[in-house]
Amino acid sequence: MYCRWFHLSALLLLFLPAIVFSQEAPISEATQECLDCHGVFHPGIVADWRASRHAVITPAAALKADDLSRKVSSQTIPQALQTVAVGCAECHGLRSDKHADTVDHNGTDIHVVVSPDDCRTCHAVEADQYSRNIMAHAVGNLADNALYNQLENAILADRSLEKGQLKTAPVDADTRAEACYYCHGTVLKVSGTVIRDTDAGELEFPVIEGWPNQGVGRINTDGSKGACSACHTRHEFSMAVARKPHTCQECHVGPDVPAYKVYTSSKHGNIYTSKKADWDFKTVPWTVGRDFTAPTCATCHISQVVTEDGQTISQRTHEMKDRLAWRIFGLIYAHPQPKSPVTSTIRNADGLPLPTDFKGGLAKADLIGPDIQAQHTQTMQATCKACHATGWVEGHWRRYTNTIERTNRAIGTITELMTEGWRRGYAQGLDQGGNPFDEHSERLWSDAWLFYANTVRFASAMAGGGDYGVFADGRYQLSRTMADLHKWLAQRRMLETVNGKNP
Amino acid sequence: MYCRWFHLSALLLLFLPAIVFSQEAPISEATQECLDCHGVFHPGIVADWRASRHAVITPAAALKADDLSRKVSSQTIPQALQTVAVGCAECHGLRSDKHADTVDHNGTDIHVVVSPDDCRTCHAVEADQYSRNIMAHAVGNLADNALYNQLENAILADRSLEKGQLKTAPVDADTRAEACYYCHGTVLKVSGTVIRDTDAGELEFPVIEGWPNQGVGRINTDGSKGACSACHTRHEFSMAVARKPHTCQECHVGPDVPAYKVYTSSKHGNIYTSKKADWDFKTVPWTVGRDFTAPTCATCHISQVVTEDGQTISQRTHEMKDRLAWRIFGLIYAHPQPKSPVTSTIRNADGLPLPTDFKGGLAKADLIGPDIQAQHTQTMQATCKACHATGWVEGHWRRYTNTIERTNRAIGTITELMTEGWRRGYAQGLDQGGNPFDEHSERLWSDAWLFYANTVRFASAMAGGGDYGVFADGRYQLSRTMADLHKWLAQRRMLETVNGKNP
Amino acid sequence: MYCRWFHLSALLLLFLPAIVFSQEAPISEATQECLDCHGVFHPGIVADWRASRHAVITPAAALKADDLSRKVSSQTIPQALQTVAVGCAECHGLRSDKHADTVDHNGTDIHVVVSPDDCRTCHAVEADQYSRNIMAHAVGNLADNALYNQLENAILADRSLEKGQLKTAPVDADTRAEACYYCHGTVLKVSGTVIRDTDAGELEFPVIEGWPNQGVGRINTDGSKGACSACHTRHEFSMAVARKPHTCQECHVGPDVPAYKVYTSSKHGNIYTSKKADWDFKTVPWTVGRDFTAPTCATCHISQVVTEDGQTISQRTHEMKDRLAWRIFGLIYAHPQPKSPVTSTIRNADGLPLPTDFKGGLAKADLIGPDIQAQHTQTMQATCKACHATGWVEGHWRRYTNTIERTNRAIGTITELMTEGWRRGYAQGLDQGGNPFDEHSERLWSDAWLFYANTVRFASAMAGGGDYGVFADGRYQLSRTMADLHKWLAQRRMLETVNGKNP
Repeated sequence: MYCRWFHLSALLLLFLPAIVFSQEAPISEATQECLDCHGVFHPGIVADWRASRHAVITPAAALKADDLSRKVSSQTIPQALQTVAVGCAECHGLRSDKHADTVDHNGTDIHVVVSPDDCRTCHAVEADQYSRNIMAHAVGNLADNALYNQLENAILADRSLEKGQLKTAPVDADTRAEACYYCHGTVLKVSGTVIRDTDAGELEFPVIEGWPNQGVGRINTDGSKGACSACHTRHEFSMAVARKPHTCQECHVGPDVPAYKVYTSSKHGNIYTSKKADWDFKTVPWTVGRDFTAPTCATCHISQVVTEDGQTISQRTHEMKDRLAWRIFGLIYAHPQPKSPVTSTIRNADGLPLPTDFKGGLAKADLIGPDIQAQHTQTMQATCKACHATGWVEGHWRRYTNTIERTNRAIGTITELMTEGWRRGYAQGLDQGGNPFDEHSERLWSDAWLFYANTVRFASAMAGGGDYGVFADGRYQLSRTMADLHKWLAQRRMLETVNGKNP
Repeated sequence: MYCRWFHLSALLLLFLPAIVFSQEAPISEATQECLDCHGVFHPGIVADWRASRHAVITPAAALKADDLSRKVSSQTIPQALQTVAVGCAECHGLRSDKHADTVDHNGTDIHVVVSPDDCRTCHAVEADQYSRNIMAHAVGNLADNALYNQLENAILADRSLEKGQLKTAPVDADTRAEACYYCHGTVLKVSGTVIRDTDAGELEFPVIEGWPNQGVGRINTDGSKGACSACHTRHEFSMAVARKPHTCQECHVGPDVPAYKVYTSSKHGNIYTSKKADWDFKTVPWTVGRDFTAPTCATCHISQVVTEDGQTISQRTHEMKDRLAWRIFGLIYAHPQPKSPVTSTIRNADGLPLPTDFKGGLAKADLIGPDIQAQHTQTMQATCKACHATGWVEGHWRRYTNTIERTNRAIGTITELMTEGWRRGYAQGLDQGGNPFDEHSERLWSDAWLFYANTVRFASAMAGGGDYGVFADGRYQLSRTMADLHKWLAQRRMLETVNGKNP
Repeated sequence: MYCRWFHLSALLLLFLPAIVFSQEAPISEATQECLDCHGVFHPGIVADWRASRHAVITPAAALKADDLSRKVSSQTIPQALQTVAVGCAECHGLRSDKHADTVDHNGTDIHVVVSPDDCRTCHAVEADQYSRNIMAHAVGNLADNALYNQLENAILADRSLEKGQLKTAPVDADTRAEACYYCHGTVLKVSGTVIRDTDAGELEFPVIEGWPNQGVGRINTDGSKGACSACHTRHEFSMAVARKPHTCQECHVGPDVPAYKVYTSSKHGNIYTSKKADWDFKTVPWTVGRDFTAPTCATCHISQVVTEDGQTISQRTHEMKDRLAWRIFGLIYAHPQPKSPVTSTIRNADGLPLPTDFKGGLAKADLIGPDIQAQHTQTMQATCKACHATGWVEGHWRRYTNTIERTNRAIGTITELMTEGWRRGYAQGLDQGGNPFDEHSERLWSDAWLFYANTVRFASAMAGGGDYGVFADGRYQLSRTMADLHKWLAQRRMLETVNGKNP
C-alpha cells in the first residue's frame, strides 16, 4: 500500500502543471434540455461551451476566489443562477423581457443575442468599464458623424455611369453591415418572426436586421451597446483567446490600423510567436515572467498583470483609454485621447466633428489635457518597466513623442497642399460642396494620414520599427505621397495657366 | 506484482491520448535497399516518410478500417502491395512502363515523378474526384486560353527599349515555370538522360523539363494531371498538414486570391490560430467539436466532417466545386461555377474564352444553373450549421450574395469606362489589336477585378470582414480605381479636344 | 523497494523526451545581489534569464561538451568566470574599463550595453565570424555611403511648404534611430549621467544617445559593432528563438526584403508552420530529419546541420555570405556578393559607391568572382541535398539564375527610361544636381528595383513561387512600373513638343 500511494503522489506532482483543474458544476434542467437538441444540431458550439469555464464552475464557487484571481466582479448574483453552471438557458433566457428578440422556444423564453447587459449579471465591473470604452460607442461615433459618413459614402456607395458622369446611389444596408460596421457593430432590430421547419419540428424564430454581427459597438436588442463576443469568442468565451493577438487582428490588421502586422514584426511579437507554446494564457491574475515573458496586445492594453510575489503591475481595465495618452489612428492628425467615448459631439475650431482642425489645432475642450496624458502614459509604462530599465523606457517614449510630432508635421504639409487644391477648385472639398474623400488627389491625401502616418506611428509606438516604419506603408510612402500631391498641384496650376481650368 | 500492474495501467490511462498509435508494417526488400542509401544521402525525406502513415501500416491493414475512417478508397489493391509498407520502391517503382522518366537505378526501374495515377492504386476515389476538379486542369485552362495568354504575356514577357518603344520578346520557359505555372503546374517532359557521379558511383538519371514542380495541374510523365504533393506534402503525405490553412496559403495568399489573409483575420482564423495546439488534425473522420472547433480551409471545402455520434455532416470531396455555387476570383465578374473543369473551351456571347462577356452577361451554356448552385450552397451550409443557427447562416449568405451582385455592378461600371477608353483609342484593347492588359489604364481595370473586387468577395464569403472588406485591397481601393479610371477618361477626352490625340 | 524503483525508472523512460535537462550552476555573489533587486523590479527579464542556458550551466561545464554540441567556442575562458552561472554581473560587469557607459551601481562597475566583444569572452568564433558579416557593418555601410544618404533623406527628411516649394530640413536623430537605423543599428554615445530616484534609492545612470537599440550593426559603447541580442533575444539568448523565422521577420518582412513573407508561403514555410510543434529547436548540433524536416532561415544561412549519424552537412557560420553567391536586394541590380563586409568603399565605373553602374556593369574589383560564387552555391546546396535529389536542386538553381538575369534585364530597361528622363531634364537626378530618389518618376524607378525585382528574386530563391513571383509585389507590378515609366517619358516628350518644358 505504501508503494501505491507513494507512486500516485509522485505522479500527481509530475503531472500537476498539465492537469486542467476541472470542477464540477450542476447543469440546470433548462440548459440540459437545450443541450439535448443542440448537442446534436450544433455540436461545435456545444463543445466550445463544454470546454469553457462557464460549464465547469458555478457562480457561487467563482465568487469565492480571492480578489486577484476572481473573474466574477459583480458583488451579488441572483440566487437562482449561483448554483448551476452558466449554460445555454442561463444566458439566452436572462432578462427575456428586455430583449426584443425573445421568442417562445419549446416553452421557454429565449433570446438569440446575448448582450453586455446580460453578461453584466456576473461581470458588472467589466461591463461598466466597457460602457465607457470608446469601442462601445463605435456605431454612433461613425453613424452620427456627418464627415465620417462622407468617407463611408466615398468608399461604399454604388456608382454607375450616367452621361459620362459617376452617379452615386445610397449605400445598401448589407454592404454597410459587411464593411465598416462589421467591426464597429450593426444595429440589431427585430423586424418580425419566421416559422422554420427544423429537425425538431416547426419553430418560431425572430428575424433580426443586422444579424449576424459581433462588432465592438453593436446595438443589441435590449438597447445595450457592444458585443463581448467580439473578443471573448463564443461559446468558450475564453480569456486565453482574448489575450492572444489574433483576436485583435480581426479588426486591426491594417493598413488603417496595422497594429497586428507591426506587432508580429516587433521583438515582442517574435518572442510571443516563438515561445507562446510554453506560456500560460489561462491563469488569473497573469504573472509576468512566469506565465509569459513578452506582452501581447492585451497585456499592455487590458490585462491585470502581477509579479510572481503578487504585486500588481497593471489593473485590469476594459476602458482602454486608461493606458493611452494619444489617439494615433483614424484621423487626420494624432491627438490626445478624447475625454468622452462619444466622439460624434466633438467640434473643432471650424465646427466640424473632428478632434483637430485641418491645420492640426486641437479641439481642446473635448480632449484630455497634458496632465491626464501623463497619467495614462505612466499607467502604460508600468508594464514596460516590468522588463525594461527606465532609461530604455524613456528613450522609447521620447522617440514615440517625436514621431507623433513629426508625422503630424508631415500631414500638416500634405493637408496644406490639399487645401490649396480645394481653394483653387482643382478638387471639390467641403467648402466647394463636394465630398472631400472621393477624388484622386483627395485619396492621396487620405492615404497619407489614414495609412502611412498611422503605420509610422504604430511602428514607433510598438517598437515594430524597421519595415513598417519605412518601406511597408511607412515613411517611404508618406514622403512619396507628399511629392505626388505637390506635383499634382503644380501641374494643375500650370495647366490652368496654359489652358484655363481642366480636369 | 499487484502494485506494478496497478501503476502501469494507471500510467497507460493517463498517457493514452499522448501515445502515437504506431503499427508495424514490414518493409519490402526493394524499399529497404532504397532506404539504405537514401537514408544517408537524403535523411530529411526519409525521416518524413518514416513519420508517415505509409511507413507504419500495410494496405491490407488499411483496407480493414471501417468505412468512415478508411483512407484507402480503392476496392482492390494488387496483392503484392498489400502486405508491405508503402515505401520508396512501392511508389517510385509503380507502373514503370507508363512513366517516361523511368530509368534503371541500381537494377530497379524507378521513376522520379510519382503521379495521381500512381496514387490511384490505393486512393481511387480521390484520384477520380480530383480528375474532375478544376485544379487538375490548371495547365490547359491557362495555356489553352488565348486571352489568359495575353495576360501572362503582359506580366511576364521580356521587354527592351528599341527606338523609344517597348519591344516584347517571348516569355522563357524558366520564368513561366516559376511564375504562373508554379501553382498551375508545369508540363514535365523527359528530354534525355544524364550520368552523374554520385556518392554511390556513376548513375543515370532522366533529364526532366519543367522539373521540379508541385503545381496542382502538373502534367506528369505518365500523362496524368495534378500533383497530390501540392497539398499532401512529401514524403509524409500528411493529411494533418493538408488540413491546415498554410497548405492553401502556398498559392492563395493574394492579392489575386487573398483567401489565406482573409481567413487569418476572420473569427474562424482567430480560433484556429489561438486554439490549434489543442486540436487533433490527424483523426479520420474529422469530428467537429471534438477534433476541432472552427473550420480551416479544408473543413469547408474538402474534408469529411462528422458529429461525435458519427453522423456525417459533409462527405469528403476532392472535386471542390461540389460545395461552391460561385467562382469569385480570377475573372472579370463573379459567376456561377463552370460545368466542366476544362474552362478553356468556354465561350461568351462575343466568342471569347470567358465565362461572362465584358458587360457581365453569363456564358450560360457553360455554367451551372441556379438549381445546381442552390444544391452546392446547401452542401456548404451543412458545415456552417454545425455551429451556427439557420438565421445566422441565412444572414451571412444574403450578404454574400449581395456582395457578389454589388461588386459585379462596380466592375460593370469600371469596365464600361475601360471599354469607352478602348473605343476612343486611348488604349489599345482587343478590338484595337492590342493586349488588353498591358497599359496603365488597363492595369487600373485589371486591378479592380483581379485584386479589389476579389478581395471584397473573399472578405464577404469567409466573414473576414473589416479590413479586407474595406481598406486592405477592398472597397477603398475599388472605389478609388473607379474614380481614377473615370478621371483618366475625362482627361484624355479633354486633351483630345485641346491637342488632338496624344499619349 | 523493488516496486518503487521499477516504477521510477519506468517513469523516467516515459518522460525522458519531455524533461528539460537542467543543470545546476552556482550563482556568483555579485549576480545574486543583482537578482535580489531586479527580480522584483524587472521580473520579466530575470525570468527570461532563469530560463536561459546561461543560468544553468557554468562555462567550465559548457567547455566539456563534445565538439559538435559545444556552444562555447573560445579556447580559454577567464578562470573567475568558469565556475559560476553566466549571470547579470558576469556580462554587465565584464570589461568595465572598455565601456563608456560604465557607472558605479551600488558599489559595482556596471555597463548597460553588453556588446559582441563582451560575448566574445566565451563565443570567440561567432564574434569573429560576425565581425566579418556584412550586418556588423550596417551602420557605416549606410552612413558612409553618400548615395544611400540621399535615399534616406528622400524618405525621412522633414518637409514644409515655402512659397509653394517643398523645403527640406535635415533628418532628426530620433527619426533616424527609429527608421533605417532601427535595423541597421544606432551609434551609442554616452552624453552624461543622470541621477534617478528609484525604488532602491537615488542611483546614477549613464545617458546614452541612440538607446535603446538592437540593430545588427549597432556601434557599442566599447566601440565594437553589432548586437547579438538582435537575434539572440534578451535575456534568454535562446538559440531556439534565433532558429525560428520570426527573428528574421523583425527586419526582413518587406516589401524591400520580403524574405519572411515569401518563406511563409513556400512549401518549406508551410511545413515549418504546420509541424513546428513537433520539432526540436534546442538541440546542438541540429539534426535534419530528427529535429526538423524543413529548413527555417537559420538552417540555410547560419546553422550547423548534421545527419543522424553525425555527418556534418553545413558548418555553423555567423558570416552569412559563406553560403551566398548573389546579393539580390537593396540595390539597383542583383550582383555577386561584395568581397568585403564594408561596402561604402565600393566604387562602380562611374565612381559611385555602388556594386554596379546604372547599366548593370559590375564593380568587379569589389565583388566576388564566379569561382567563389560557385563555392558559396555549393555550400548552400549541401543543405538542399539533404532532402532533394541533384536534379531537383539543379532545376531550382537554373531557374534562380535565370530570374536574376531576367530581373536585371527588366531593371536595365527601366533604368534606361529613367536615365533618359534625367538626361532630358524631366526629373532631377545626380547629373542634374538633384536627389535621384525624391520625385514621382524616380519613385517608380526605385519601386521597381527596391521592391518588385527583389520580391521576384526572393520568390525564386526560396521557391515561394506563385503569388510573390507574380501578383504580390512581383512581376505584375514590375511590368506595370515599366509601362508607367515609359508612358511618363512619352507624355513628357509630347508635352515638351506642344508646350515647351513643364512639370
